[in-house]
Amino acid sequence: MNLILIDPNEVSPRGDVALQDHRAAHIREVLNGREGQSLRVGLLNGPTGTGMIRSVRDDEITLRCVFGTEPPLVPQVDLLLALPRPKVMKRLWAPLAAMGIGQLFLVNAQKVERYYFDSHVLDPEFYQPRIHAGLVQAMDTRQPKVRICRQLKPFIEDELDELVPKAQRLVADPAAEARIASVVEPSRSARVLMAIGPEGGWSTFELDLLREHGFQFVGLGPRILRTDTACVALLALVNEALREA
Amino acid sequence: MNLILIDPNEVSPRGDVALQDHRAAHIREVLNGREGQSLRVGLLNGPTGTGMIRSVRDDEITLRCVFGTEPPLVPQVDLLLALPRPKVMKRLWAPLAAMGIGQLFLVNAQKVERYYFDSHVLDPEFYQPRIHAGLVQAMDTRQPKVRICRQLKPFIEDELDELVPKAQRLVADPAAEARIASVVEPSRSARVLMAIGPEGGWSTFELDLLREHGFQFVGLGPRILRTDTACVALLALVNEALREA
Repeated sequence: MNLILIDPNEVSPRGDVALQDHRAAHIREVLNGREGQSLRVGLLNGPTGTGMIRSVRDDEITLRCVFGTEPPLVPQVDLLLALPRPKVMKRLWAPLAAMGIGQLFLVNAQKVERYYFDSHVLDPEFYQPRIHAGLVQAMDTRQPKVRICRQLKPFIEDELDELVPKAQRLVADPAAEARIASVVEPSRSARVLMAIGPEGGWSTFELDLLREHGFQFVGLGPRILRTDTACVALLALVNEALREA
Repeated sequence: MNLILIDPNEVSPRGDVALQDHRAAHIREVLNGREGQSLRVGLLNGPTGTGMIRSVRDDEITLRCVFGTEPPLVPQVDLLLALPRPKVMKRLWAPLAAMGIGQLFLVNAQKVERYYFDSHVLDPEFYQPRIHAGLVQAMDTRQPKVRICRQLKPFIEDELDELVPKAQRLVADPAAEARIASVVEPSRSARVLMAIGPEGGWSTFELDLLREHGFQFVGLGPRILRTDTACVALLALVNEALREA
């Protein structure tokens, strides 16, 4: 934990927070927290700040927090991901949140099995703690907005323009020659929507659909990566391309 | 498996291979292999080629293989990694092999616990199957050379020049401003040695040691990543920077 993440509902008007859960255990056991010590804190979807330890008890730690005024910027990348199988999706939540994404669209595709959508790994109760773990790792407070889309075509045709109005649209394709760095213009305000297909690849129909809706094809070289590795690699390249030189 | 990986010792002079292990199960159950079907095969550390299925039995599958003449190029990146804790190292083997590295140096550092070096995840019996899994995913045959270095200083001072004679040396440092893309020159023949520290960071002494031995400091932006995520992100950026535009 590089940050203690706090829900706005947990904070009293004067900035006091009482922690009893895994965060208290972390402060006690890993940070070896003592009265008077200052910790980095962050309000979920809000600003970061400093929390001074007021008391350490076996069952509770209290902090007095002072937060900044501005929350961190929303990450500039949204991800459209063909839903991976549950075992892979389970371990993707934290690294996706750590890499930083604004919106996550988990979509169907021909090579996505229907039963993936019934998995408990898509329950907010399951994934929110994992998203929070990724945020505290990366010292961010911005929760990605998660949307599960069981039908790709109507989602792309009818919803995408409204949800992602101005982003540059990219789709990773092993056959594409274009490099992300040569396609994405660095800019602090630009947004990119990155589409990543299923392990077996998008179908021809799906690739045509994406092309017709403005997705540019970008490649990552000849190596074929597993979905979880590909997500981290592609997000790293997009983030780097957006950083101003 | 995007490739059936075969040890040179398994191949008869006329190119016949008999498989009984998980590869046979994969060909039977996932690829639905039939007599006469052709599969992508690769010789460990050697060329790729085509394997024609000659027979499918419950306990054995035989292939007749024809290999190309040239093995794939050795990946252009070597990785010097402060040994992560066993749980993390365990799941790093396959993605590291999939991303492609020539040599892997697992080194000690102040924030590496001594007991990490006693873990079974450093036994070749443990890690070789995982490295092979990464190679078949990425359709590569080149096994990274693994070297475990329990003392950082003598390794950097006395061994590194010989093991990595001409590589450009980089070290990831959250505080550094320089971007990988602006430091690495694209070239098909260049080599890069990328150093990645422990979760708690390198010590000042270690950073000085690396600087004195020609490591350039590069940053990945403000987000702090877990070792496994950072490895994939940094290797993706170095590989991309080496690709000629």
